[in-house]
Order: sequence, then structure tokens, then C-alpha cells
Amino acid sequence: MPFRTNITTRRIEWGECDPAGIVFYPNYFAMFDNATTLLFTAALGMTKYQFLAKYDCAGYPMVDTRGRFLSPARFGDDVTIETSVTEIKRSSFQITHLLKNNGVLAVEGFETRVWTGRDPADPSKIRSQPIPAEVVERLSLP
Amino acid sequence: MPFRTNITTRRIEWGECDPAGIVFYPNYFAMFDNATTLLFTAALGMTKYQFLAKYDCAGYPMVDTRGRFLSPARFGDDVTIETSVTEIKRSSFQITHLLKNNGVLAVEGFETRVWTGRDPADPSKIRSQPIPAEVVERLSLP
Amino acid sequence: MPFRTNITTRRIEWGECDPAGIVFYPNYFAMFDNATTLLFTAALGMTKYQFLAKYDCAGYPMVDTRGRFLSPARFGDDVTIETSVTEIKRSSFQITHLLKNNGVLAVEGFETRVWTGRDPADPSKIRSQPIPAEVVERLSLP
Amino acid sequence: MPFRTNITTRRIEWGECDPAGIVFYPNYFAMFDNATTLLFTAALGMTKYQFLAKYDCAGYPMVDTRGRFLSPARFGDDVTIETSVTEIKRSSFQITHLLKNNGVLAVEGFETRVWTGRDPADPSKIRSQPIPAEVVERLSLP
Repeated sequence: MPFRTNITTRRIEWGECDPAGIVFYPNYFAMFDNATTLLFTAALGMTKYQFLAKYDCAGYPMVDTRGRFLSPARFGDDVTIETSVTEIKRSSFQITHLLKNNGVLAVEGFETRVWTGRDPADPSKIRSQPIPAEVVERLSLP
Repeated sequence: MPFRTNITTRRIEWGECDPAGIVFYPNYFAMFDNATTLLFTAALGMTKYQFLAKYDCAGYPMVDTRGRFLSPARFGDDVTIETSVTEIKRSSFQITHLLKNNGVLAVEGFETRVWTGRDPADPSKIRSQPIPAEVVERLSLP
Repeated sequence: MPFRTNITTRRIEWGECDPAGIVFYPNYFAMFDNATTLLFTAALGMTKYQFLAKYDCAGYPMVDTRGRFLSPARFGDDVTIETSVTEIKRSSFQITHLLKNNGVLAVEGFETRVWTGRDPADPSKIRSQPIPAEVVERLSLP
Repeated sequence: MPFRTNITTRRIEWGECDPAGIVFYPNYFAMFDNATTLLFTAALGMTKYQFLAKYDCAGYPMVDTRGRFLSPARFGDDVTIETSVTEIKRSSFQITHLLKNNGVLAVEGFETRVWTGRDPADPSKIRSQPIPAEVVERLSLP
């Protein structure tokens, strides 16, 4: 993989699970959103609050995402999330997440996001921006 | 469309939005999960609690889902969700959601789910089950 | 009660419940936060997005809240939330929520919130502001 | 303090914050619920899934909780939560959480919970149970 990968771990919480006793699947997307932030944090050496400010960025909202759920996880399970940048374009990028439970692939996540800034014409709105060269460079390091 | 469609409305809540002021996208999946339940509720004439009990069902966990985010919604926006069954197989089915904001398509959701019951060999686990004929019939009505 | 009251209803969602099959209690606070917004919306005749803009308000963050949980609610239950303003001071106010399930009081919520605006000295921060006279007047109507 | 204390840390996530850029307060209650579980996990040496099974416990639902919010936290902030058992009765117990942001007390949480099991007369319901002596002993160790 030519791009950066970051691995995080977390224990599934009671409150993330539904009456079937397994993770309520929208919560996987919240875990993945945070995992993407942790990859950026590792790549840029600062928190999201800090790098949004530094690069005058309004966030990297989701354009398209998919999750494949191969096996359930339940509260108390320790899972790992392997997050990789898979493509970087001018103002968008792609991420893949592999969530493993006890070493077995349980959920796959795929993301296409866009780098944004405040719209100069209307600061209440956001619009796509070219990803700063420094950010591209840091995400490109394996 | 030969299968059932159900339309619901909701106002986006402050707590569903993120620091960019727009819906935190995992919350769209929670809205869609509920919209699928509301379609079943309309089709079967009872709540999820009731139809899980009636059909000895342990839920219809997600196998594969995708969301496409075309434009943001923010707190106070009134959105409609048009939910349709698009395919019914032996133990799985597909759903499409079209979320419109002020009449404009803002988010598309696609779901493949599986109908499950408790595993007789280990009641702490769930496994796929054939969708009951009565449920198939009710979901097939336009 | 000399102040405004607003009543809302909602059906408990599958995703709001935990592995015990009952509402995960933090979600009651999210319901109450929204119920407070709906009371303001009814009192002021506009959405939160609109009245924050109109009154240059940065929100009414929570200072102190308490919940008492008398009986559980589960997915499919239709609950009503009766929300009342109980006290209005210069820049803070108090709210009480009575959540009833099938007519029986199930959860009580108590809130003390503060009306805020952006800090002129540092717009990244918020600080308490006097509640606008017009807002006080509207909240005071029964 | 004669009872057990457990300290955990976490970084505030983007998705836990609201349009004001600060933690949406219901999420503090979710953090505290998990912190209580982590205290039990540390005291009993097993995950919640494991100790619910071992002690035939259906959870420790909340009876009464209060949060005091002294200063806001925002995404990227690293907070510590100091969780202490403050009282143990026959079937209920009390917990206090002190959440500190950069060393400064930001949120206090107070909980009264009840230990439960499945109701033998109706397994779909839960009812209070005496806390097992072994659990009391482990929670009582400082």
C-alpha cells in the first residue's frame, strides 16, 4: 500500500449495542469516522481541532460510504480497526477500514470524502477545497 | 415499483449535527434503520416489538449498506424519507431510502439485510431464517 | 403553572435501546434536549436554526441536569413528553420534562440552562448573555 | 474514600460534539455509563459481557443521575474520568464521576443504579436483585 495506514483498538461499549446484543450498525460508521480522524492525527501530528485551524479546513464530509458486515461484535469485544488511505485526488480522498474482532475480519468500511473550507461568499456554507500539498504529502507516506 | 413504499418525515435535531453544523452522517444510517422499521410497521400493522415476537424473529441485521450524500442538512430542516423494498429473497431483502430536503434529494441509502432467529443450538447467537410467507406477502404489496 | 408547556410524542426506536431491550438512558437526555428545542420552537414560532440567528444566540448549553428513571420503556413504545419552563432568570432558565409511557410517568428530567452568545473578545468561545426580553415574554405565556 | 476508584482517559471525538463545537451533553452520560462499566471491569477482572453471565445479571440500570457542567470540552480534548463507588446498599449503589479537561474539573456525574436479574415470572422483564457478596467485596476495595 503506497499510502498511510493507521491501526487503532477499542472495546465495544454496552451503549453501542442494540436489543439483539450486537453493535447497532450506525455506530460502526461513527467508529470509522473517528478512525479516519485518528489517521489524520497520526499523519499530521496534531488533533483535528488543531489541523482544521491550521489549514483553514471546515472538515472532510462524507460523499459516499459503504459498510459490509460479516460477523457481529458485542459489548466487551476488543476490536482493531486498520484504516488506510487508498486514493488521493485534488479535493477528495478514499479511505478503507478493516475492523477485526478476535483477529477475524468482521466489518469493512469504504469512504469517499471531500476536503472543505468555508465559502467566502457565504461563511454559513462549506465548499470543496484542494487538499493542501502538505496534507497530501503526509497522507502519502506509508 | 412492485414492492411496498413508505414515506416518513422528521425534523433534523441539534444533537444529530456536528461542529460543521450539518448532520453527522452516521446519524443518517440511524434514521434509515428506523425508516426500515416504520416500513415494516406499516406493512405488518404492528410495532417492531410486536412483530419480532409474532414471527419469533431476532431482528434483520445489516449485511451491506451504502449512503450517498449529495447535499447537507442542518438542524431545523424538515426532511422526508421515501423507503422502498427493492428485492426480496429467501432470507434477505433490499431497501432503498431517498431522503429529500426541501424537495431536493439530499441522501440516498441502500441496504441488504437478513431476517434472523435465535440459533436453536446456541440461543445467545442469531442466524438467518427464511422470511415468513406472510411477511413477504405484506412487503410485496405496493 | 405560570410558564409555557409543550407536549410532544415519539415512538421509541430500536437503535435507542440497549442489550437489555430498554432505552439506553443517555438517549432520554437527547430526547429531552430536543423537547426543550420544540418548546422554544412553539413559543417563538420558528426553528432553532432560525431563532439562534435572529437573537444572535450560540445555544443554551446545559449547566445542571438530572433524570429520574421510574420504569423502563422499550422500542415500539409511544411516549409523551410534557415539557415546562419552571423558572426564568436573567441569563438562565429551568425546564422540567415528564415522560409518560402508556399514561404512566416513566422518566422525569430537570434542566438548568444558560442562554449564550459568542464572546466578542474570542469568537471561538461562548459566554452567557441576558435572555432577550421577547424570548422571556414568549416563554412566560402559559 | 473507602470504595474503589478507577481512572480512564479518552479523547473527545468530532461526532460527540454539536453545532456549538462542544460535547453534546447527553454524550457525557454515555461516557459515564462506560466509565462505570470500566470500574466494574477493573474490580471484577472481566468484561461486562462476562460478569453479566457469571452473576446472572441483567444489567445495572440507572435510577437517578445528575450531571453538572462547569466548562465545555471540544473535539480533540483529552479528558480523564475519575469514577468512584460512593455507596453500596443491598441492591443499589452510587457512583460519582469527575471529568477533568486539562486538569480542570469540567463535568461532575452522580449515579444511583440498581443491580437486576431477569424476572423468573416473566423473563422479558427485569427486577432488582441483591448485589452478589463477591461483587460487593470487590467494589469495596480501595
